[in-house]
Amino acid sequence: MPARRLCYVSCGHRRCAPSGPDLVRLGTVTTTSPDASDLYPTTRPAAVREAAGRAGLDALLLTPGPDLRYVTGYDAMPLERLTCLVVPASGEPFLMVPRLELPAAEHSPASRLGVEFVAWDETDDPFAEVARRLGPVARVGLADRMWALQSLRFRAAMPGAEQTLAGDVLRELRMRKSPAEKAALAEAGAAIDAVHALVPGLLKAGRTEREVGRDIAEAIVGAGHARVDFVIVGSGPNGASPHAELTDRVIRPGEPIVVDIGGTMPSGYCSDSTRVYCVGEPPADFAAYYEVLRAAQEAACAHVRPGVTCESVDAAAREVIAEAGYGEYFVHRTGHGIGLETHEEPYIVAGNTEEMRPGFAFSVEPGIYLPGRHGARIEDIVVCGETAGERLNGTTRELVVV
Amino acid sequence: MPARRLCYVSCGHRRCAPSGPDLVRLGTVTTTSPDASDLYPTTRPAAVREAAGRAGLDALLLTPGPDLRYVTGYDAMPLERLTCLVVPASGEPFLMVPRLELPAAEHSPASRLGVEFVAWDETDDPFAEVARRLGPVARVGLADRMWALQSLRFRAAMPGAEQTLAGDVLRELRMRKSPAEKAALAEAGAAIDAVHALVPGLLKAGRTEREVGRDIAEAIVGAGHARVDFVIVGSGPNGASPHAELTDRVIRPGEPIVVDIGGTMPSGYCSDSTRVYCVGEPPADFAAYYEVLRAAQEAACAHVRPGVTCESVDAAAREVIAEAGYGEYFVHRTGHGIGLETHEEPYIVAGNTEEMRPGFAFSVEPGIYLPGRHGARIEDIVVCGETAGERLNGTTRELVVV
Repeated sequence: MPARRLCYVSCGHRRCAPSGPDLVRLGTVTTTSPDASDLYPTTRPAAVREAAGRAGLDALLLTPGPDLRYVTGYDAMPLERLTCLVVPASGEPFLMVPRLELPAAEHSPASRLGVEFVAWDETDDPFAEVARRLGPVARVGLADRMWALQSLRFRAAMPGAEQTLAGDVLRELRMRKSPAEKAALAEAGAAIDAVHALVPGLLKAGRTEREVGRDIAEAIVGAGHARVDFVIVGSGPNGASPHAELTDRVIRPGEPIVVDIGGTMPSGYCSDSTRVYCVGEPPADFAAYYEVLRAAQEAACAHVRPGVTCESVDAAAREVIAEAGYGEYFVHRTGHGIGLETHEEPYIVAGNTEEMRPGFAFSVEPGIYLPGRHGARIEDIVVCGETAGERLNGTTRELVVV
Repeated sequence: MPARRLCYVSCGHRRCAPSGPDLVRLGTVTTTSPDASDLYPTTRPAAVREAAGRAGLDALLLTPGPDLRYVTGYDAMPLERLTCLVVPASGEPFLMVPRLELPAAEHSPASRLGVEFVAWDETDDPFAEVARRLGPVARVGLADRMWALQSLRFRAAMPGAEQTLAGDVLRELRMRKSPAEKAALAEAGAAIDAVHALVPGLLKAGRTEREVGRDIAEAIVGAGHARVDFVIVGSGPNGASPHAELTDRVIRPGEPIVVDIGGTMPSGYCSDSTRVYCVGEPPADFAAYYEVLRAAQEAACAHVRPGVTCESVDAAAREVIAEAGYGEYFVHRTGHGIGLETHEEPYIVAGNTEEMRPGFAFSVEPGIYLPGRHGARIEDIVVCGETAGERLNGTTRELVVV
């Protein structure tokens, strides 16, 4: 029957660490965890309501996902049964919740908000109830991740209402991280840095990508993440595929290895960092472009300040790579926003003329990929400050020769 | 940058089992894994296309999720970058895929289908490209879990097209499990049975729900699941909340404990089973209604056969409980379909007049909940056969006194 997804990694896996003492040390990461009441302030529903009104929306409909969590702190499971925070532009917000989920909602941070919880029963129609309570509406904003299963039922229940994305309203708020959110991202950054610090000990010629990846996954949990989100260990030619899957390929001497890893902390905020390692000395052609890549990543990070466009940060990296003759081998955007999602606004990509503002948080991760041979990517999370960018990852960006 | 979510539980956690020898035994579960080519036959896109045409749809648009996996076998990550199988009612299907995800798609079972992969680049508009390739369309079916982020962009790209749910077409196919799908569900059932067989050894007065839950999560992985989906350990009064969260409540002697657990197998198919345990002898009032519940669950399972309605299976359980005077304490539907999702069609609920057909697979899980005191639920997965239902869970349904 149930629905409550257990974060497997809440299992306290430190004891099953591949290299126990190291992982025990990880438990001492000293970054301070931000308090939930700072991360998810009770003023947020009102701020969101005002933003919706300014945007000409009559209501926001927020089903489980990062939008709902941002507004309420409630990490609700996406389910076929409708859970939905309804935020009318005028009027009081309320949370539609299946009666079975009511205890979970009541135990969540959403209970601090003074918002009415409207429990619905198995044979009720919660979509009709939302429509009835809202009355006539012209425009509603849907959570960006609302399932079609629900958006189409809302459309049928409110046939006159134009549907738009709540993200158009929420992005303005979510893009500018509060001090507590920056602290949460810094905590995540320190945790993933601690994992990268262990990687040299895991990489040995003769091991497979999958074996290394399993150890890294355990270390991600051991470092305090609530969930492993991804582990890329791209050895040799596999490093030339930016989103390589873990394979049974055996790592050989002299091969560069792209390690791109991240997870979600108990706070809800995500980590994401890429470093490149080499088992023994790298090939000469690789060493040449790796230094170009380092310079490009530095240039993009140094370019970050309020007022510059997102696409100019992409260009700052791209120009260095192109001038060195590797332009055709940098096949993806330079970065993505990060927060409650690994990928969110703002995207650091050509065409995005959004101007940086203090609090923007995003990855800077140019890459150079030589198909069939090898590849490299260097990635830090950067927060735009009042005058410059600040990196939240601190492990060395030099090629680590193991 | 990345995107590929690593199933943390692919880490081979047998070695971190709370009770090693038991978990090693679990490795010997003998149910045969169905082959991917049987589970996800290459004939499926054509079957789906025909079904879409019969339903008057011009195309299906299948983004990552169970609908896409059912049709192709591709377990793609849901991302902001569009991956979408486009199945025109007339014309050849094609898979829109971000260039970064192309290697993953090419390594997935979707590569067997002879379907064109259309890779798009970072600054392309894949929604416009789908619209251009489809030409004028009047009605399209969206994957039930398609994000609003994408459904609204498809709406803008195809302003004349009515959007409906692909599930209205796919449910007819997905509800009737093939022999390979039944085998996959049986494999999942055997795996979760093996975990229930361990539970008595984990339950002790003085342990907390969370401690027991962590051990169960590890055992779920140890039993061969690729992912833990949920773990409910509802002790004493917490058992009266059907979707109880794991808490730090300490289990006391004489308390009934509802254990509802499930995961997803590497095949993609899910397990879900509930049993009730008691540390020491249960209270008299509990023992009385537990026998009523057993009879109700038996009656509902015995009622399953082709031609009876889904709601009549619900009624078969509900009548036994109501006649014994506990009707008001059975607060949820009797069950849900199961397959590639833990919760899918058909729902075993009042109002669902769908008639059972061979291959329907669903849970039968009546419950009785006395708020503030204790509760009980007994759950098996049942497949409708040619003449009767067959249970895929086999551990004892008697109250297990530990």
